[in-house]
Amino acid sequence: MSVEQLVEELCKNAKWAARALSVMPRGQKDKALLNIAQALESRAGELKDANQKDLAAARGAGLSEAMIDRLTLSDKVIAGMAQGLREVAALPDPVGEVTGMWRRPNGLLVGRQRIPLGVIGFIYESRPNVTVDAAALCLKSGNAVILKGGKEAINSNLALAALIRDSLEAARIPTAAVSLIPTTDRAATGALLKMDELVDVVIPRGGESLIRYVAENSSIPVLKHYKGVCHVYVDKDADQDMAENICINAKCQRPGVCNAMETLLVHQDIAGEFVPRVGKALMAQGVKIRGCHQTCDLLIEANPATDDDWPMEYLDLILAVRVVDGMDQALDHIAAHGSQHTEAIVTRDYQRARRFLNAVDSSVVLVNASTRFNDGGQLGLGAEIGINTSKLHAFGPMGLTELTSQKFIVFGDGQVRE
Amino acid sequence: MSVEQLVEELCKNAKWAARALSVMPRGQKDKALLNIAQALESRAGELKDANQKDLAAARGAGLSEAMIDRLTLSDKVIAGMAQGLREVAALPDPVGEVTGMWRRPNGLLVGRQRIPLGVIGFIYESRPNVTVDAAALCLKSGNAVILKGGKEAINSNLALAALIRDSLEAARIPTAAVSLIPTTDRAATGALLKMDELVDVVIPRGGESLIRYVAENSSIPVLKHYKGVCHVYVDKDADQDMAENICINAKCQRPGVCNAMETLLVHQDIAGEFVPRVGKALMAQGVKIRGCHQTCDLLIEANPATDDDWPMEYLDLILAVRVVDGMDQALDHIAAHGSQHTEAIVTRDYQRARRFLNAVDSSVVLVNASTRFNDGGQLGLGAEIGINTSKLHAFGPMGLTELTSQKFIVFGDGQVRE
Repeated sequence: MSVEQLVEELCKNAKWAARALSVMPRGQKDKALLNIAQALESRAGELKDANQKDLAAARGAGLSEAMIDRLTLSDKVIAGMAQGLREVAALPDPVGEVTGMWRRPNGLLVGRQRIPLGVIGFIYESRPNVTVDAAALCLKSGNAVILKGGKEAINSNLALAALIRDSLEAARIPTAAVSLIPTTDRAATGALLKMDELVDVVIPRGGESLIRYVAENSSIPVLKHYKGVCHVYVDKDADQDMAENICINAKCQRPGVCNAMETLLVHQDIAGEFVPRVGKALMAQGVKIRGCHQTCDLLIEANPATDDDWPMEYLDLILAVRVVDGMDQALDHIAAHGSQHTEAIVTRDYQRARRFLNAVDSSVVLVNASTRFNDGGQLGLGAEIGINTSKLHAFGPMGLTELTSQKFIVFGDGQVRE
Repeated sequence: MSVEQLVEELCKNAKWAARALSVMPRGQKDKALLNIAQALESRAGELKDANQKDLAAARGAGLSEAMIDRLTLSDKVIAGMAQGLREVAALPDPVGEVTGMWRRPNGLLVGRQRIPLGVIGFIYESRPNVTVDAAALCLKSGNAVILKGGKEAINSNLALAALIRDSLEAARIPTAAVSLIPTTDRAATGALLKMDELVDVVIPRGGESLIRYVAENSSIPVLKHYKGVCHVYVDKDADQDMAENICINAKCQRPGVCNAMETLLVHQDIAGEFVPRVGKALMAQGVKIRGCHQTCDLLIEANPATDDDWPMEYLDLILAVRVVDGMDQALDHIAAHGSQHTEAIVTRDYQRARRFLNAVDSSVVLVNASTRFNDGGQLGLGAEIGINTSKLHAFGPMGLTELTSQKFIVFGDGQVRE
């Protein structure tokens, strides 16, 4: 069987399983999730053995320690996966929820009911725990999922998939509800992306090159974000203690992630005081500043920013800083250089807070809080399968609800159209 | 300027206009809609003159009378457009609605607020009144729109676009909010479909070949439906008077549209009585029956159906009829041959009504009502820009709400992430 045939067969089976999943009671889905959690704990030895093969190969290939760390299935990572599964099991079932219902003049009762999307293709890199997270969210939301993991994690992923399969069987759920493409052949990804008759949506998670490859080669709709060039705008009426605290958190708490601040915009009326202050505090945390000429005048340690800095996602302890002459210039800067991901304003002014919330066209817009809160868990979605920075279907972090659609249900008494 | 450059310039201007539209108060948008309505009436002569050029060209090209009828801007069509605009103006503004808000343990208040999608590419055929309908829905929902109409209607569309432009100006709205591609060059459509950096979504409306062309050539997400193969399942416990009435309405009231019934499924327990009865009633309306062998046994006027009939969208007074051995077979038939558009059950049985509603994976599922109700106006959405039969973003008829997305808004008091 060619890799294309293999992928097609997995997708066909997934589509068949999706039909069963779409009407499955919550209890049965939750039972499978709890089965997987239990199996992760009882079969941890088996998982770690498989993981050792991946780790040995990774060391042989000279992967960085950071990569090897992300690849490792330690007891702590395994316990985290099991905990995550139990949390997803405890979340409400999004499927079947009727989000509204109204009566028409002719007596028809019309409602909208949540339904699963169908079959999800999930393409990801490196961390094997993502295999379990993605399977859990898709299963809970009544979707079948085809998983395509990175080649570095193939042995770990195969062991996890076997364990998931057994857990599904024990809950009397078709095992095709969760399937892993059991090969590292890159052609499998290409084949998956052409299954538009069988797969409803593709979600890639990984570096920008993976995501661009998926977006450019998929004939299936893709939910994705390329990058997060997140801004904090410190208004002239900001509480400067709060502003400093938010800037330090947004830049330094975890600089390598998509919701970290990459550009700081400061109102000129407070720049003389705030830029040196926040600059020193950031530099004390190891942050390098690339500033506009006013910033460089105020902070001699800053290096001059070039036009390339404004749209840059550093994912590092580097920050672009620009002094703006007011809110309009801040909004224009964000519209020109932002990535529609996450922007925050720090202000005590009611009117400007309101205006920023309305005018900024990003998936998460915050007043007086760190950009780091753009996260499904932090915003209260319960769990997150990814972030979407295009506005179609979902904008921002995607939880269980975002893995569903809605159909119209209509209750009649024999009505016909005039 | 090449056609590609022309299209790119229109899209750039539209993107700029979209930013202004996204925060525009409802009153200003409604004023523009009412201006257009008034201009349609006061400048009807100008419109009819332009329309005459299209009609003369259509007659010269030997277009069918039906096509010429659809192309004609009569006083009645013009009055209908003006009425439609006033109805859209009266609808609530979807933009700015906060659909939910909740407090997090750390005190953050998190909500979701409706926002426009941005720039919509709308590609359509023949009827010039669609120009006004689409412009109205996009404008009301705060989106800029690029219109690409059919070549048959170019003069009518140019006249409508000029009138819309003047009406926008009078309401102090950037005229780039609604632009018509002012050429019949087919290359313009191809160019529009590649503007993924500037256009957020494409909606095609027309025949299947137009829609396939758009879907296959667009690098922008597309909201579309190919066809409606709609089923009515008459259960063994159906009220046969009601079932007959629904079948006649679903098939005959307007056979050429996507929500007309194309296949009738009848439970075997009542087939002996119902198939001859409904068959005669349908034939009296001019319907030709293509039946399974049981149907043909019961109704000698029926012709045998082949495998090609079951997935067929006739758009005509032709109906496929199959006798099924029960609800499971009906559900399997719909899953195998349906188009996820519209399906109805006729039954008096509570449990089977519930099961049908849950199990059928279509954008509109009805109990005891005609499939013809799959329509934005009929379902209470106020107006409709199209129907989507993929589940991403919107499933079924799309009204103003479906032309929006939601962003997260977060109110903090200095919160940072631990």
